[in-house]
Amino acid sequence: MSGDASAFAGGRLDLLDVQYAPGQQSHGEAAADLVDFSHGDVDAFPPYPGAFEAVARAFAQGTAMAYSEYRGHRSVREPLAGRLAALTGAPVDPDRELIITPGTETGLFLALSCLVAPGDRVAIVEPDYFANRKIVQYLRGEILPVRLDYLRDDPAELDLEQLREAVRRGARVVCLSNPNNPTGVVYSNGQLRDILSIAQEGGAFVVADQLYSRLIYPGIAYPSLRSIDGAADNCVTLVGPSKTESLSGFRVGAALGPAWLIDRMEKLLSIVSLRTAAYNQAALHAWLIEPAEWLEERVDAHRRDPGRPPRTPAVSGGDGGAHDVADAASETIVRRLGDQALGVRTAVGVHSLPGGAPAEVELTVVTRTGSGH
Amino acid sequence: MSGDASAFAGGRLDLLDVQYAPGQQSHGEAAADLVDFSHGDVDAFPPYPGAFEAVARAFAQGTAMAYSEYRGHRSVREPLAGRLAALTGAPVDPDRELIITPGTETGLFLALSCLVAPGDRVAIVEPDYFANRKIVQYLRGEILPVRLDYLRDDPAELDLEQLREAVRRGARVVCLSNPNNPTGVVYSNGQLRDILSIAQEGGAFVVADQLYSRLIYPGIAYPSLRSIDGAADNCVTLVGPSKTESLSGFRVGAALGPAWLIDRMEKLLSIVSLRTAAYNQAALHAWLIEPAEWLEERVDAHRRDPGRPPRTPAVSGGDGGAHDVADAASETIVRRLGDQALGVRTAVGVHSLPGGAPAEVELTVVTRTGSGH
Repeated sequence: MSGDASAFAGGRLDLLDVQYAPGQQSHGEAAADLVDFSHGDVDAFPPYPGAFEAVARAFAQGTAMAYSEYRGHRSVREPLAGRLAALTGAPVDPDRELIITPGTETGLFLALSCLVAPGDRVAIVEPDYFANRKIVQYLRGEILPVRLDYLRDDPAELDLEQLREAVRRGARVVCLSNPNNPTGVVYSNGQLRDILSIAQEGGAFVVADQLYSRLIYPGIAYPSLRSIDGAADNCVTLVGPSKTESLSGFRVGAALGPAWLIDRMEKLLSIVSLRTAAYNQAALHAWLIEPAEWLEERVDAHRRDPGRPPRTPAVSGGDGGAHDVADAASETIVRRLGDQALGVRTAVGVHSLPGGAPAEVELTVVTRTGSGH
Repeated sequence: MSGDASAFAGGRLDLLDVQYAPGQQSHGEAAADLVDFSHGDVDAFPPYPGAFEAVARAFAQGTAMAYSEYRGHRSVREPLAGRLAALTGAPVDPDRELIITPGTETGLFLALSCLVAPGDRVAIVEPDYFANRKIVQYLRGEILPVRLDYLRDDPAELDLEQLREAVRRGARVVCLSNPNNPTGVVYSNGQLRDILSIAQEGGAFVVADQLYSRLIYPGIAYPSLRSIDGAADNCVTLVGPSKTESLSGFRVGAALGPAWLIDRMEKLLSIVSLRTAAYNQAALHAWLIEPAEWLEERVDAHRRDPGRPPRTPAVSGGDGGAHDVADAASETIVRRLGDQALGVRTAVGVHSLPGGAPAEVELTVVTRTGSGH
């Protein structure tokens, strides 16, 4: 008898869908004429200065840089910790509270895998980065959605009543991205305090995906969850240079959290991938110390990206970057897209729209299958 | 209430131990004076010519090479497939039967995760690469050990009766490395046929870790499991340039298997790490097409590595590379080390032994804790 799929464990995998993502076009003709909204910044700008040179130096050193601790080179973590503390507003112990991950995606996978057991309830903001739902489903957790109202006239707000109810119903983990991915909404300090307080009262832990936290438009305040009193022990913060900094091609990221969680994440990383590519880790030497003006210019460049469609006034609160799926369409279309959409089949390319609300675009919303809620 | 470890899913993680591994010295003073036998080739030679240059070119191309299909750039897979077919003795479809992984470790994690459900029985050769046990334990599979007799005078042999019994008891998956890691034993064509046949009769799938398959000493025949009739549909083969080729610092590898399994592995990779670092994938452009003589010289260099202790005649059948934990000690010590040892505390450095059997070395075998069998 030959091996065949049905004979082996696969139930959890069959829930996953990989048709619609950057580079996945060859996976089916249906995908070829879709505009992909599932990922941002695929049209990358150059990475920050010095990133490649640092990797080249690590490669030239050979042995000494080819292997590292599973949690990353100490020589990378030590100087990085202070810069991450400045970025997130709370101290970071380089030995206990920081792990270098093969991209922020792996940070998310490790953190959720270390927090969610089968049957555990997880409160997930809607809309949010699609992978957190996929990972929780893979872990056989139960998702309790919490609505982010991003289409009203006032600044966007998370539905705290719904969050309270989710925690009351036993949610062990609260998953959010800040700025919200995909809408770009930045949470206010007040909202973050409320979210943390609700989570803490219910004994829930917060996973804060801050991948887009360096893509904040001028004049907007960006508080990091970790900066709030008591948060650093009750959350894991995921960051990395893949988006604003366009370094996704090296797959490096970082996770900050309490020592017990970082220890667990390292244990899991040791069997998942051993470590972040050890040469690539060196790219972080040049991260968060870019030349003055660099970040300002980069944020401006992202904002002026001709591949990014104009904002619609109907979408409120989009103060950060994310990749603004909301930007791409009118309120009606956004409501149809909702959280489940994977792409829009369109008669004209959304990227070549002449500006203004894309009312004339003929579109079909393609939704995720089997996403479970 | 603040988050604390005991409140969250962690049982499976607590089984894992990361104290003893390259670069992990800072994780405890006890590890500092241990000689580590858990990984090989940490003292790396230079990678094959052109590897870094290929990555540098990919980086220079920016956007086009920063993202790839989850299973890897087609531009890398297409030319690589033919070379992997030559390496493994059976055709490889670049679109259906090949996935680029962030190191062979991730290939192993993905393959086992796609094959083993909680409670499934898995036959694992003993001794073998320690991570396959860890991964199966993490997946809550049940391990059925199958003894590889590598200490007899005749060529080493797998205990086929024990394998037959494991499959009879319901083992769904058979895990082996070839050359065996850590002993260096190369399986004969006859043994591979028998292993495949036993697996097929019982409906079991084979995971063949061939990471060391290019570190074969001169004059030794190395048959690949895939080269045997019917094997390609019933096994997944893991290869990569981390060992003989010393490219572990980039974390790239490849898995070859039937389309249904590669599809599943890609789905899981999409939530675990999205993809292998897309720039790094380009290093594979220069792999398996090294200049004539390069491999021969490299194998010879590994063999003459002054960091590699002399072989002991008591260890039979070590025809391939692996990292030869067996080489490092007398038969008695090897028997004590067995499969569970993580390191040896020694009064003198094993690596500075004057040659011959290290009878005078005072040692304490440090065993894995909580490894479950």
